[in-house]
Amino acid sequence: MHVLVLGAAGMVGRKLVERLLRDGRLGSRDITRMTLQDVVAPAIPAKPGFPVDTVAGDFAVAGFAGKLVAGRPDVIFHLAAIVSGEAELDFDKGYRINLDGTRMLFDAIRLVGDGYKPRVVFTSSIAVFGAPFPEAIGDEFFHTPLLSYGTQKAIGELLLADYSRRGFMDGIGIRLPTICIRPGLPNKAASGFFSNILREPLVGKEAILPVSEEVRHWHATPRSAVGFLLHAATMDSSTAGARRNLTMPGLSATVGEQIAALKRVAGDKVAGRIKREPDAFIMGIVDGWPRNFDARRAVKLGFTTDEKTFDDIIRIHIEDELGGKFVA
Amino acid sequence: MHVLVLGAAGMVGRKLVERLLRDGRLGSRDITRMTLQDVVAPAIPAKPGFPVDTVAGDFAVAGFAGKLVAGRPDVIFHLAAIVSGEAELDFDKGYRINLDGTRMLFDAIRLVGDGYKPRVVFTSSIAVFGAPFPEAIGDEFFHTPLLSYGTQKAIGELLLADYSRRGFMDGIGIRLPTICIRPGLPNKAASGFFSNILREPLVGKEAILPVSEEVRHWHATPRSAVGFLLHAATMDSSTAGARRNLTMPGLSATVGEQIAALKRVAGDKVAGRIKREPDAFIMGIVDGWPRNFDARRAVKLGFTTDEKTFDDIIRIHIEDELGGKFVA
Repeated sequence: MHVLVLGAAGMVGRKLVERLLRDGRLGSRDITRMTLQDVVAPAIPAKPGFPVDTVAGDFAVAGFAGKLVAGRPDVIFHLAAIVSGEAELDFDKGYRINLDGTRMLFDAIRLVGDGYKPRVVFTSSIAVFGAPFPEAIGDEFFHTPLLSYGTQKAIGELLLADYSRRGFMDGIGIRLPTICIRPGLPNKAASGFFSNILREPLVGKEAILPVSEEVRHWHATPRSAVGFLLHAATMDSSTAGARRNLTMPGLSATVGEQIAALKRVAGDKVAGRIKREPDAFIMGIVDGWPRNFDARRAVKLGFTTDEKTFDDIIRIHIEDELGGKFVA
Repeated sequence: MHVLVLGAAGMVGRKLVERLLRDGRLGSRDITRMTLQDVVAPAIPAKPGFPVDTVAGDFAVAGFAGKLVAGRPDVIFHLAAIVSGEAELDFDKGYRINLDGTRMLFDAIRLVGDGYKPRVVFTSSIAVFGAPFPEAIGDEFFHTPLLSYGTQKAIGELLLADYSRRGFMDGIGIRLPTICIRPGLPNKAASGFFSNILREPLVGKEAILPVSEEVRHWHATPRSAVGFLLHAATMDSSTAGARRNLTMPGLSATVGEQIAALKRVAGDKVAGRIKREPDAFIMGIVDGWPRNFDARRAVKLGFTTDEKTFDDIIRIHIEDELGGKFVA
């Protein structure tokens, strides 16, 4: 089977590719070829057991998507996007990549024709929802995004459902929770602190907490995110019916609960590296974010997380990213 | 004030234009100029008291929308659309007009810049919803359209909200109920029979009922539809907050209740002109349609209907379309 990954150089993309190369299969079928796209050429982990092509380029340029799907990949992971902050700052770029690019991809698939109907896994976002929220956001709650990014993702979901309904492709859209603990360097995304306050102290560094410990948010590990993608690629899509866009399961926790988990797993000294520096700007942004979901539909359709508690989230990071060790 | 109407030659567009010309004002402001667009040149009712320009052309052609908004109309009614059946039959045309055309209009407004921020009233549709439904669809129920038309309208709603949030325009989207009694000739839309079975018997003609009397649907008169448009154009949009797309109020009635109302208003002989010819194809389509709504948010924001009962719907048709008379 031929697998195409758009956005293969991103954090989730890299982890997905690593996993696919390690497994050598997707569901019950062997992978025989992979194509990895991103704006910069994605790195190929050493020694793949089958041909892996890399393509560097902007998938929202006319004709580009057509070339990507000309080889009729069986499964397409569409992870490519301009992130929320950038889509908000650069209106045209966000719409061009997140809306036009997604539509061009779907149209390129449609125009292959001749019975071609790949599974398309699209990463949407909980940013499709906008405050005010119920206590826990259910599977039938409406989409009133408060960012252009969330608007573009919500439109992508609608297109995915319609193109699938009309038989042009077989899409599944998944709304990922905020990934925690996000590996790599601290980033300036408003949501970065949820990971920073755990990741940095575990390697002996200080981290800034810009909000109160009461702030509640929705999380999943990178390992679970990859698991969601694999399940979305292999599940029986008919079980989703016409409602092909799903809120993924996650863990709802307050920042205080995150810190308590860090203390339990790594000790008070590690947790002591968190510095409280309230930031009114970030508090204002985070105030409009979803806090909790009731994602029972995805669970019923077989999506599972590896973590049951926030302690697990921290342990999984230590295991997957730190080789089992942290700086006590 | 300058008013632009896109889709001015359609059924609702014509009634809106008639009303605006009759009133000569919109809310508290006098109309000083109108521009009417449609694919065919809209007719101008006799003797307008101010300049009325008509423009025939496809608003989804590059550059067209820019010309329409160059005169900086204060209020824009965007009623132009490919209807559901045609958008389903011609995929490219539906997306080109209903999605690209709407986006081109919004972008043309955005690109005027220089503080230009017109009120934009967009007619969406209850087709943004897809079965299965709750008993009555509430204001926070999600959008899972089962037609490309509904998908395109749902995308238009998302764009309207985002472009408004970013300050490019001041949009209000309204989801119209099925218009009943729709004037004119019987049409072949799957929903046509809801009007046909009332309108035709009132002029002495037979009409076909292709579904069972148990079928329940959601209706409003043309008079109410025009009222919704006027309120959407003049209301304080800040009262809608970020949730600018609203399900309009209507009347939920079964076909049996429609016929009972016809008997009460016009007599058994008139109702006797309805011929029952069950049509499995139409029954299948209608099965997926919304039956009832709880549109309390729109009511709270001041949207009202002229009709309180289905009897009123029939009386309003006799009054507005038949000069007060029907064929008993």
